[in-house]
Amino acid sequence: MATEFELIRKYFERAPRGARRGALARSVALGIGDDAALLLPSAGMELAVSTDLLLEGRHFRAGADARKLGHKALAVNLSDMAAMGAAPRWATLALALPAADETWLDGFAQGFFSLAARFGVELIGGDTTRAPASGPLSVCITILGEVPSGLALYRAGALPGDDIWVSGELGGAALGLAQPANAAAARRLDEPEPRVELGERLRGLATAAIDVSDGFAQDLGHILERSGVGAVVEYARLPAFPGADAKQVLAGGDDYELVFTARQERRAEIEALARELKLALARVGSIQKGEAALQVLDAGRRAMPLARGFDHFAP
Amino acid sequence: MATEFELIRKYFERAPRGARRGALARSVALGIGDDAALLLPSAGMELAVSTDLLLEGRHFRAGADARKLGHKALAVNLSDMAAMGAAPRWATLALALPAADETWLDGFAQGFFSLAARFGVELIGGDTTRAPASGPLSVCITILGEVPSGLALYRAGALPGDDIWVSGELGGAALGLAQPANAAAARRLDEPEPRVELGERLRGLATAAIDVSDGFAQDLGHILERSGVGAVVEYARLPAFPGADAKQVLAGGDDYELVFTARQERRAEIEALARELKLALARVGSIQKGEAALQVLDAGRRAMPLARGFDHFAP
Repeated sequence: MATEFELIRKYFERAPRGARRGALARSVALGIGDDAALLLPSAGMELAVSTDLLLEGRHFRAGADARKLGHKALAVNLSDMAAMGAAPRWATLALALPAADETWLDGFAQGFFSLAARFGVELIGGDTTRAPASGPLSVCITILGEVPSGLALYRAGALPGDDIWVSGELGGAALGLAQPANAAAARRLDEPEPRVELGERLRGLATAAIDVSDGFAQDLGHILERSGVGAVVEYARLPAFPGADAKQVLAGGDDYELVFTARQERRAEIEALARELKLALARVGSIQKGEAALQVLDAGRRAMPLARGFDHFAP
Repeated sequence: MATEFELIRKYFERAPRGARRGALARSVALGIGDDAALLLPSAGMELAVSTDLLLEGRHFRAGADARKLGHKALAVNLSDMAAMGAAPRWATLALALPAADETWLDGFAQGFFSLAARFGVELIGGDTTRAPASGPLSVCITILGEVPSGLALYRAGALPGDDIWVSGELGGAALGLAQPANAAAARRLDEPEPRVELGERLRGLATAAIDVSDGFAQDLGHILERSGVGAVVEYARLPAFPGADAKQVLAGGDDYELVFTARQERRAEIEALARELKLALARVGSIQKGEAALQVLDAGRRAMPLARGFDHFAP
């Protein structure tokens, strides 16, 4: 059986190795294989940092396809960078595995690195450890990105009168969870597409942004709470994934679309951006003065009941 | 029962909150509570990044004291910064907990934050999730630090003729694991002291460094392998923790002392540093030309057998 060190080398040492001093890559002075990686942040940039811990049986199904899991674990983190308007640059990966299964590692590495390559992300460090035989398999990724100073997208920037926008479609991941045989929906759940380019292009254009991980209503709620504003959304304007019901659209998590706000005078720019990126951007409502409450109106302009989003510790 | 969001706020939102734009702290533009933290790296510095995932039952005992665990989880990561000569600055923390036990969280936070405060580390982000009721509780920390460009301590810098040095004492943690009633040894295991000041002071002085996490012989072996050199160590010169046997001294992990190499002409400086830091620094052997092999000699100058260090996936 391979040792931990051999496994790390075989599957994950694709980043530039830190050999002797002087062996510098673009933005990495020292990669996997020392006590820490050494990065060279760019001047004039803020460093965006986010960590997610995914557990088998909670964030993904037991026996989930390894390649899809490698994709999704990184996608979830890339989505956090997108929501900040940051360009993802580097990642660390810690795995707890019930066994050193090389087929699994090979698949996971394929999913992880093919997505990483698309967005120019380098794996700079990691840790593998043996989980109990009963599991759960767990994946902890920290992502680091860069954003020009002062241009990051905060949750706390929405202003009364702003439009509320949503990318792509909502509810697909929740539908995929409910109906695994629905291939298109299952793909939304298993292989979400992080909106990295959109996030970067929203710098200076959006007033606030967040990604839809816990559900549209709850995630928009975070913008409202941090910004100290309310919102009215028209349900009919929300871009529902085909076949998704209102609960899936409003409270389904894991879609990894971006919800953002922008001044009304920026509508034409946002519509042009949607055409350029070939990504639907729907204007779904507006920010209101007052308490941090969300009203979703049905076709008769009646307020719809809102289910709570996902909370790992809720009773 | 508290929700995830309430728990995060109550125990971990001590970092500067990212309110509206302009609410800047020293080195953190935006702390916990957005999609990512935003850091302001210092000019002329390299960024050191390391991730560790600790599992109950593997890295710490089931039912371990929460305060001690909060200390140790951060200490292990601070030790990686020490081994690079980096000044620790920021950390993210992801927890998977079988239950939202507030007594546990309170203790963990105390241990974590009291050590963080000693070294000026800010908690900038995190994630909490519910582990299965059967566990394991797991803790994933990513630490970020800074080191002046070109001055980091690599594993790959040892040169033939260099002295080999060890800080503090070896084998205490392994002894504490074997004899929990030995309070001094148990303290070494449960509340290790990361050698952060020593690491920073070794910049420009040591040629290579590593921390003792897997055992002296194995960790020195990493220096030898990366540097392409051999080593001879005299067992009698190794600073044994009182009561620790040879196996504990040579192969016991979790001591978090630093092993480093330096040119012979720097001996007086290193001895002066030991006095200044009030930390024993023992000169235990020397680096040799040739293959990356370690010989440990007993009092009769005979080679001692070396047990292998800890490997999570070894058969």
